[in-house]
Amino acid sequence: MPIELARGVRDFPPEEKIIRDAVIGRIKTVFEKYGYAPLETPIIERYETLSAKFGAGMESDALKETFRLKDQGGRDLALRFDLTVPLARYVAMHPTLKMPFKRYQIGNVYRDGPIKLGRYREFLQCDVDIVGCKAVTAEAELILLTLEVYRALGLEAILLVNSRKLLQGILDLFEIKPKLHNEAITILDKIDKIGMAGVETDLAELGIEKKTTKKITDLLDIRGTNKKILEQLKKKIDNEHGKEGIEELEELFSILGDQKDVKLDISLARGLSYYTGIVFEGYATKSKIKSSICGGGRYDDMIGSYAGGKKDLPAVGISFGIEPIIEALKLKGIKQLKSVAQIYVVPINTFPQCLEIVQDLRHAGLRADIDLMGKSISKNLDYANALGIPYTLIVGEEEIRQNLPKLKNMKTGKEEHMTLAAVKAKLLK
Amino acid sequence: MPIELARGVRDFPPEEKIIRDAVIGRIKTVFEKYGYAPLETPIIERYETLSAKFGAGMESDALKETFRLKDQGGRDLALRFDLTVPLARYVAMHPTLKMPFKRYQIGNVYRDGPIKLGRYREFLQCDVDIVGCKAVTAEAELILLTLEVYRALGLEAILLVNSRKLLQGILDLFEIKPKLHNEAITILDKIDKIGMAGVETDLAELGIEKKTTKKITDLLDIRGTNKKILEQLKKKIDNEHGKEGIEELEELFSILGDQKDVKLDISLARGLSYYTGIVFEGYATKSKIKSSICGGGRYDDMIGSYAGGKKDLPAVGISFGIEPIIEALKLKGIKQLKSVAQIYVVPINTFPQCLEIVQDLRHAGLRADIDLMGKSISKNLDYANALGIPYTLIVGEEEIRQNLPKLKNMKTGKEEHMTLAAVKAKLLK
Repeated sequence: MPIELARGVRDFPPEEKIIRDAVIGRIKTVFEKYGYAPLETPIIERYETLSAKFGAGMESDALKETFRLKDQGGRDLALRFDLTVPLARYVAMHPTLKMPFKRYQIGNVYRDGPIKLGRYREFLQCDVDIVGCKAVTAEAELILLTLEVYRALGLEAILLVNSRKLLQGILDLFEIKPKLHNEAITILDKIDKIGMAGVETDLAELGIEKKTTKKITDLLDIRGTNKKILEQLKKKIDNEHGKEGIEELEELFSILGDQKDVKLDISLARGLSYYTGIVFEGYATKSKIKSSICGGGRYDDMIGSYAGGKKDLPAVGISFGIEPIIEALKLKGIKQLKSVAQIYVVPINTFPQCLEIVQDLRHAGLRADIDLMGKSISKNLDYANALGIPYTLIVGEEEIRQNLPKLKNMKTGKEEHMTLAAVKAKLLK
Repeated sequence: MPIELARGVRDFPPEEKIIRDAVIGRIKTVFEKYGYAPLETPIIERYETLSAKFGAGMESDALKETFRLKDQGGRDLALRFDLTVPLARYVAMHPTLKMPFKRYQIGNVYRDGPIKLGRYREFLQCDVDIVGCKAVTAEAELILLTLEVYRALGLEAILLVNSRKLLQGILDLFEIKPKLHNEAITILDKIDKIGMAGVETDLAELGIEKKTTKKITDLLDIRGTNKKILEQLKKKIDNEHGKEGIEELEELFSILGDQKDVKLDISLARGLSYYTGIVFEGYATKSKIKSSICGGGRYDDMIGSYAGGKKDLPAVGISFGIEPIIEALKLKGIKQLKSVAQIYVVPINTFPQCLEIVQDLRHAGLRADIDLMGKSISKNLDYANALGIPYTLIVGEEEIRQNLPKLKNMKTGKEEHMTLAAVKAKLLK
């Protein structure tokens, strides 16, 4: 019987995990700089918590793809499919939480869906949300944070911004019934996937004429600077939804000031129907990675619905996609290493002294490895090479006598006798 | 319907998660200093991989408590109950892996067991293992690493060491049949839980007379320095298992040199029957936490059994228990904070200027938060206080005019006008 992984899940060997940890570490540092605190919730939730029972506008696809299980007591459980529902559950369970509640959570989520290229059944979500703040200052903060994540990762990327209210206003303008809005927006959001013809067909099924669809998509096609787009829309739209959407966007851009990487894109909709206001979606520029690297928006109703609808619990959040971010960074040429070690000590009949040396290097703060098996020099150099360890320290009896171990740069092949203090100083630089 | 967690799992609110992350971060840093690379395996495995089919000496309790589930294709899956079986599966799937393979993995594992105080159905394991090294230098490295973890955490603790082979040698000495060894050792390991009477009863069931049990436990009761214990045993034991065990321990202590926190305890057995050589178990000293904070040992057969038994894949590992470590640290008086922020900016009709200030603080590397909601000063101070943020920066129009924001130490109440540069310098210290 072959040993295999379950379908749709992955191992991350050191050469992948080291990069993942570095990317996650940088993102986490930015989240904390912005005052967001970490929260961890369990991977196993009660099925009822995840099911549509509580969630207004839950993502029905996600629910279909939920992994279900039972415990010894026969209770219905499930693996979480996102981090937003657990956040809503957490907030509902803690009515005395100080608001705004600014939290981030980085963790795996599970979806038992079809396996396609780049789609996995276990994948990492990296969410940052602010609960309890109605003001658009919250969106502004999350946008600034996103731009700082880009910078921290060395990623050239933009953030597209739109407003669900503005989209509703546009639908109102063409007298599309409010109860069709969510569905119509979801269809419009798919224009890149299904094309104009697909959008026309799907909207026709909702009873929207081809002529009207054309007018809507023409309007959504307005391009220009953020300011110019809003000016044009103001002239055309004077219904309540539309005006509210425009005002919020104006306020947002006024807080943000001149941010060249934040662009209004009024065709941006985001699939999930729980969004209620401003939405955003980020893309790497100058990259072959075309899928979004982050996305989010305001969802003012969902958390409150978990808390029994008694409380007003507005929320805005953004979720970073670690997979496309890492793909984009790899295309930029990030180094993949199989070892974390900076130096590998090779004893030649000097293990006891070398153990002292390697401990000394570690205490100095270096990541240092040592041959534990008494291999030959050439096997040891092969090993260090295969693992991508940049330096080896070769220590024979002569090196011990003279107190001058031999440092070998594994890339250039250059060898140099120097004191241990000099080795430490060189590598700590 | 009440919103609840699944049974036996936990949320970690910020005040818990911040501590967990700090502890995990320190442990991870030590692991990497010793050259261990991170590996991540999925939480979902094929049930067959986890089931006893492959694993010689698998932990049968763990298997009974395995959460099972199916995917859309009806495949039998399960949530991993430890990180050792996934390591064995990973090594088996990668026959060209460079040896020794030094990896660490920190991740949740799942056991659907009875819920008791301090026992959870989702809990973190923190494992470091070295695969492919037969030499006792591997045990020595893991012991040095463990002592460094203790120091990095500021934890006063010891590490007890023993040898499974020595225990077998002792059983051989009293002519206990080899096929009873594993069971007998498991029973002897429970002496703290079930007492001498319990051990006598359980061993009697294996056909071991009370008289013999008494002789065994008397022998296991030898106390003294590591060296003295080994000297005494050498006089008494001359069978193969016993001599091998004693020699390995002597070699280990000779490599380690004088380490006052490493103590030979020949009554230590470790429950798991897959251990084949030296075993260890760590305890906090001067602490009310009596459960072990880490444990492990050599298991030379298990990984090979996953690789079809074709290869010799010796292994040694140690697993740190995050829960008892955190409990021990809490008892020592670790600070619990609800926020990561070092400073909280309070605008008084100066939000746009304060947004620039808070961004400036963040770019300087500080973790800084700001009121986004236009709350009153007193509400803002309450908020910062409730979250344990140590400083607030109060900025009214006068402060802006003079370029002198007011820094308030939330603990002492002391307020001081100073330049932003001075604020940064003070907090970065």
